Amino acid sequence: MSLPRAVKIVEVGPRDGLQNEKQFVSTSVKIELVDRLSAAGFANIEAASFVSPKWVPQMADGAQVMAGIARRAGTIYSVLTPNLKGLEGALAAKADEVVIFGAASEAFSERNINCSIAQSIERFEPVARAAKDNGLRLRGSVSCALGCPYQGEVSVSAVVDVVQRLADLGCDEIDIADTIGVGTPKRTREVYTAVSKVFPRERLSGHFHDTYGQALANIYASLLEGIEIFHASVAGLGGCPYAKGATGNVATEDVLYLMNGLGIETGVDLAQVVAIGEFISTAVGRPNVSRAGRALLAKAKSTDEPQ
Amino acid sequence: MSLPRAVKIVEVGPRDGLQNEKQFVSTSVKIELVDRLSAAGFANIEAASFVSPKWVPQMADGAQVMAGIARRAGTIYSVLTPNLKGLEGALAAKADEVVIFGAASEAFSERNINCSIAQSIERFEPVARAAKDNGLRLRGSVSCALGCPYQGEVSVSAVVDVVQRLADLGCDEIDIADTIGVGTPKRTREVYTAVSKVFPRERLSGHFHDTYGQALANIYASLLEGIEIFHASVAGLGGCPYAKGATGNVATEDVLYLMNGLGIETGVDLAQVVAIGEFISTAVGRPNVSRAGRALLAKAKSTDEPQ
Repeated sequence: MSLPRAVKIVEVGPRDGLQNEKQFVSTSVKIELVDRLSAAGFANIEAASFVSPKWVPQMADGAQVMAGIARRAGTIYSVLTPNLKGLEGALAAKADEVVIFGAASEAFSERNINCSIAQSIERFEPVARAAKDNGLRLRGSVSCALGCPYQGEVSVSAVVDVVQRLADLGCDEIDIADTIGVGTPKRTREVYTAVSKVFPRERLSGHFHDTYGQALANIYASLLEGIEIFHASVAGLGGCPYAKGATGNVATEDVLYLMNGLGIETGVDLAQVVAIGEFISTAVGRPNVSRAGRALLAKAKSTDEPQ
Repeated sequence: MSLPRAVKIVEVGPRDGLQNEKQFVSTSVKIELVDRLSAAGFANIEAASFVSPKWVPQMADGAQVMAGIARRAGTIYSVLTPNLKGLEGALAAKADEVVIFGAASEAFSERNINCSIAQSIERFEPVARAAKDNGLRLRGSVSCALGCPYQGEVSVSAVVDVVQRLADLGCDEIDIADTIGVGTPKRTREVYTAVSKVFPRERLSGHFHDTYGQALANIYASLLEGIEIFHASVAGLGGCPYAKGATGNVATEDVLYLMNGLGIETGVDLAQVVAIGEFISTAVGRPNVSRAGRALLAKAKSTDEPQ
């Protein structure tokens, strides 16, 4: 067993976590969230989405959020850019990285964006070119990499194919995303083994959802495969749109607790993140679903427990 | 990576899960719970505790539960026996296995039973002898094996020492229990590596709590160490008495989902367990904290989701 010495945790709460909230979260809360996260030490924060406000009204204030935050030196601020208009917004907002995406499931692609996987990625070609021409980092996200809500099984070769297409567009980093949280460690390792033959392992990330409780096991399995970049959402912000009431993104606190226990450096202060989890859960009126977060808060409240 | 082909899941919900419930759970509900679990295929169920009702009033009806259940051939029904009186109760109830216990933390032992670890295990000597003389299986449980709510750190050598003492009493199976859920995979593997030098690996079990969200990662780590027996509690029954509002026992549904994904046989039907989780959560008036259980229920309720 040889684990990485350090990992990068990409905090996705401000974008992936908040995007499905029905109640609009105020711009000032979003700015405070991003600023507190950067102060806690995150080297990469997914801060906004430059998507049509008709599609995702919650993300309509991306430009204001990006204008209002205090940039921390060394932190990469990423934004989602589904098209050239989004990329223009990202450039104007001085984002450090833009994110494009494709599904590894044909059924998901057809159903969500009404075109094939290949077509959906071709459409990103001008976005990718403009990003590179303007010196932005480019990240590609492969959704449904471990399973699909519509077709169920997704083959490893389908994931490899999307990774190759995103690599061909010039992506600096590629996310293997278990969008519905159905993956387990065996498949996780098989996917990384296959994908790392077409894209450098050290620039692959793991984006795991905890819908079936498997995220931390999958992250540990990924570490054993040499993966060094993981996405997480503070307080587990962001439910699962495919199973109402179920959990979505893995909670950042749980991931940090794991890394601390493994002696793997993250550069992030867990205690600060626990406090941020309480802040944002209260602000959006949702229960904090981080187990480590809740346990650390409960322990702090207890006067009987010296540990 | 070489994983076991099959594992034994010990369902501990009826005893460990229910014992801290303030409201008395009726004997008939307990009997229905055990019977539905055996029908779902569990080869081992922790069914009752023969402890003084003054200490644990919830477990006062152990004899009636054991008398009322329908014994399934091939299922081991285990009961907790803290002393000789408990053992007599276990014999009268025709239990298949009795469980004795010791902490790996001196602070925990002194605080909870007012004696040293060594003394606490010596006191079990007559219980162990009577169990063996009567042909019962004997299981020993090592609590606080990965950390203690009072002293914090617990050394690997302290765990090895307790395992050795329980082995000397003739235990057939020994549980490594992360009573407060603080462990992570690195320490988990270190403990199994050390402990398996003094007791056969195939008779060691893992009893993990999900308080910090680490249970499934620890179980996967244990599988990589060749561990083949795991404890779990349906619907995650049983909170954490050391951190109010925090999660306790790992949920059986989540563990079964993991094993199914890894292709490891359990002999247990996940769909039945999900239904049992809903039954008992409703009966005790608690939220179902199994993530896999909740996700599978949500998926079943949705008409839009073919997977």
